[in-house]
Amino acid sequence: MRLRNKPWAKPLIEANPQWVVTNPSEYRGKWQERFEKAQPLYIEVGMGKGRFIVEMAKKYPHYNFIGLEMQTVATGIALKKQLVEQLPNLQLVCANGAGLTEFFATDEVAGIYLNFSDPWPKNRQEKRRLTYKSFLAAYKEIMVADGQLEFKTDNRGLFEYSLASLNNFGMTFEKVWLDLHADEEAVVDNVMTEYEEKFSSKGQPIYKLAARF
Amino acid sequence: MRLRNKPWAKPLIEANPQWVVTNPSEYRGKWQERFEKAQPLYIEVGMGKGRFIVEMAKKYPHYNFIGLEMQTVATGIALKKQLVEQLPNLQLVCANGAGLTEFFATDEVAGIYLNFSDPWPKNRQEKRRLTYKSFLAAYKEIMVADGQLEFKTDNRGLFEYSLASLNNFGMTFEKVWLDLHADEEAVVDNVMTEYEEKFSSKGQPIYKLAARF
Repeated sequence: MRLRNKPWAKPLIEANPQWVVTNPSEYRGKWQERFEKAQPLYIEVGMGKGRFIVEMAKKYPHYNFIGLEMQTVATGIALKKQLVEQLPNLQLVCANGAGLTEFFATDEVAGIYLNFSDPWPKNRQEKRRLTYKSFLAAYKEIMVADGQLEFKTDNRGLFEYSLASLNNFGMTFEKVWLDLHADEEAVVDNVMTEYEEKFSSKGQPIYKLAARF
Repeated sequence: MRLRNKPWAKPLIEANPQWVVTNPSEYRGKWQERFEKAQPLYIEVGMGKGRFIVEMAKKYPHYNFIGLEMQTVATGIALKKQLVEQLPNLQLVCANGAGLTEFFATDEVAGIYLNFSDPWPKNRQEKRRLTYKSFLAAYKEIMVADGQLEFKTDNRGLFEYSLASLNNFGMTFEKVWLDLHADEEAVVDNVMTEYEEKFSSKGQPIYKLAARF
């Protein structure tokens, strides 16, 4: 999702370096320094407007969280939420996810979330999908051996592609949901993104996959 | 699907041993003898009323096909179709699929179809599902190394389970469809079962997975 430019976003980010990192390579291997406590680190690649990662950080104070987003405006909107919440276990990063292995050291991450990633539906766009094999290789490199990748989407084509892509990469599926909101048990634990709430309220199924390397 | 008993079914099967095998163990390793020509052999485990396997045999005369079904009435209904068609590349087997490795020798089968298998939804029924690991082990044993398993269902729970089960068994996904009938290319080649036609006409999605060991 591309957002209309907002002139306030860039200055707001620049004024809040305690919450937003724009030079993530400099923290490679030492992200725990950015948090109040050293705790297992979970990251969301493509946090959008940040509702998911902010909610997760509130719900799980004994974990640290980083939300990555390449769009300045989306990062600015997420930052506004964090300015209200002031969560000591949440950091935001405004940077392109293609550089993940430059941003995080081997085994630095405990788990990765991908939520409603851009489907890039054309065949020639395959390499941009966040479940393409080059991204999976990066996730594997930065994540601990038993770390879990959790992927949610409402896009059927992207989910079909991702099931095959993760399988072909040799990942082990923990669980698959083809209509997440129909699973009463899963719904209790599920933290929704802005996008997810909008789509699931229309009755469209949300797909989810939990998998390990 | 359990069918009402039909008194004609058993006598009809017994009167047509040229089309229906009721002692499949005796053909283990020599199924090609049952056909006009020796050709790659594809089997459907749980053919129901036989529409799929009869259509496949008509559509692909250069392959041999076997439809397995444990219910006498369903086998009888499939047999009626074959008595009309008299397809030399189709044989029916009335027996329990749990005995697959007793019925077929190693590498005797080129491909396996599972269509709208009983979902056995309760946890304690897991071992009866045709995508449970013990069945997968049997398919692997009787199928050639690059043989393909094709699985279709309208049952969400069974498909979720099967994606994880096949993945956990180490199978490689060729392609996944979460709404088969929305894929115009796939629909051209798709041979429907009775059940599939009924369900997809109501607008319910048909799931399909093509995978190899």
